[in-house]
Amino acid sequence: MNVILLEPAELDGDRVELADGRARHALEVLGVAIGDRVRVGVIDGGLGTAEVIAIEAGRVLLKVTTERVPERPRVDLVLALPRPKVLGRLYSVLAQLGIGRLMLTNAERVERYYFDAHQLAPDYRRAQLIEGLAQARDTRVPEVSVHKSLRALMEDELDSLCPQRARLLADPGEHPRIAEACAASDPDRVVIAIGPEGGWNDFERALFASRGFSPVSMGTRTLRTDVAITSALALLHDALSQRR
Amino acid sequence: MNVILLEPAELDGDRVELADGRARHALEVLGVAIGDRVRVGVIDGGLGTAEVIAIEAGRVLLKVTTERVPERPRVDLVLALPRPKVLGRLYSVLAQLGIGRLMLTNAERVERYYFDAHQLAPDYRRAQLIEGLAQARDTRVPEVSVHKSLRALMEDELDSLCPQRARLLADPGEHPRIAEACAASDPDRVVIAIGPEGGWNDFERALFASRGFSPVSMGTRTLRTDVAITSALALLHDALSQRR
Repeated sequence: MNVILLEPAELDGDRVELADGRARHALEVLGVAIGDRVRVGVIDGGLGTAEVIAIEAGRVLLKVTTERVPERPRVDLVLALPRPKVLGRLYSVLAQLGIGRLMLTNAERVERYYFDAHQLAPDYRRAQLIEGLAQARDTRVPEVSVHKSLRALMEDELDSLCPQRARLLADPGEHPRIAEACAASDPDRVVIAIGPEGGWNDFERALFASRGFSPVSMGTRTLRTDVAITSALALLHDALSQRR
Repeated sequence: MNVILLEPAELDGDRVELADGRARHALEVLGVAIGDRVRVGVIDGGLGTAEVIAIEAGRVLLKVTTERVPERPRVDLVLALPRPKVLGRLYSVLAQLGIGRLMLTNAERVERYYFDAHQLAPDYRRAQLIEGLAQARDTRVPEVSVHKSLRALMEDELDSLCPQRARLLADPGEHPRIAEACAASDPDRVVIAIGPEGGWNDFERALFASRGFSPVSMGTRTLRTDVAITSALALLHDALSQRR
């Protein structure tokens, strides 16, 4: 936890009283005393610092000052719904690397029972995303949507969820690198689609092509989904950081 | 498993009989029949294909033809020894992304008991590394060494383990990007050092500087060690793929 994140509803004016794991973190890991300042952020609001006003019976009272609101990450992700265990570990990683929106979608090679996983429950995923934000010192919770039909996502929903025209499809084979694709179009925001273990089928590939997704390659090695996602987001953010 | 990897000692001429998880993979996942060909590789040797010669009682007899030996990955990694659970999951990821050598080292912020972890046992780590190679279709097992003194590694051992002059230190702050550092020196091989949770201390940073490591940054977000490692290796391989 590199920043203590607060729900807006927890704040009483500029005061907040912590009594949960965040209080223990402040007391036991940071070792705070009255008068110390700690890094805080308000979820979907500003980052800043807070002064420790009182400590009593494991509870910590803070006086919060926030400053800048972090920029919304410039990358959105269309992801074929992964296995529940993989998905459970992924939220924090995605929030650490920074995404604006996560669209979890069906595909031929996605097992139907994945959609019943408890890892899709809004409370679970929000807690995991916030854990990742606290690691990365961000406050902006990625928006998450779940799509049981890739076709409906592509044909009916994508243009309102992701109006940007920079659309990439991670695909094995001889394609431009992510940096090359970003340099060619100089985008403000990018959406990238990453397939299931076993890849997209031909129908799905054609659907992406029809919506303006151009294939990009990340080299000749076949990476496990979680490794491929981290690599793709690292390369995308690096490429975008050069285009400002 | 995207390639069936064979230990050289398992081969009898060009024949090998499988009776373990690889046989089950061939029979149950690939669904092979006599006469089919499967992707194989000989560990630290060539990649190729094998013809299924016989199937009997869950055992599969293969006739192996290997061709090219994959290039040794051009990246070496000095890594502050992570927590045992993290380390256990990391071997496969490192082998997937591709490293030539892994140097696991002590640092001030490494707990001493990490060195007693069963995840450091040679048999354990070799099995995990091979699992990652089988995912990425590589045969070259990264060499692994464990160093209880960073100072001894830096002063006495590094020049023979990693003679390359391109040496990078992942470090928060205002530094060149990985791609910029690679473009500046146009290296054939690179070694990158990645610190513990909490970072290197000042003495350690000075030690790296004295051995020619120049700091590189991966942006302003604080990533968990495993996410930082995957990101750094993805960026390094991408940068090196441009310099051939």
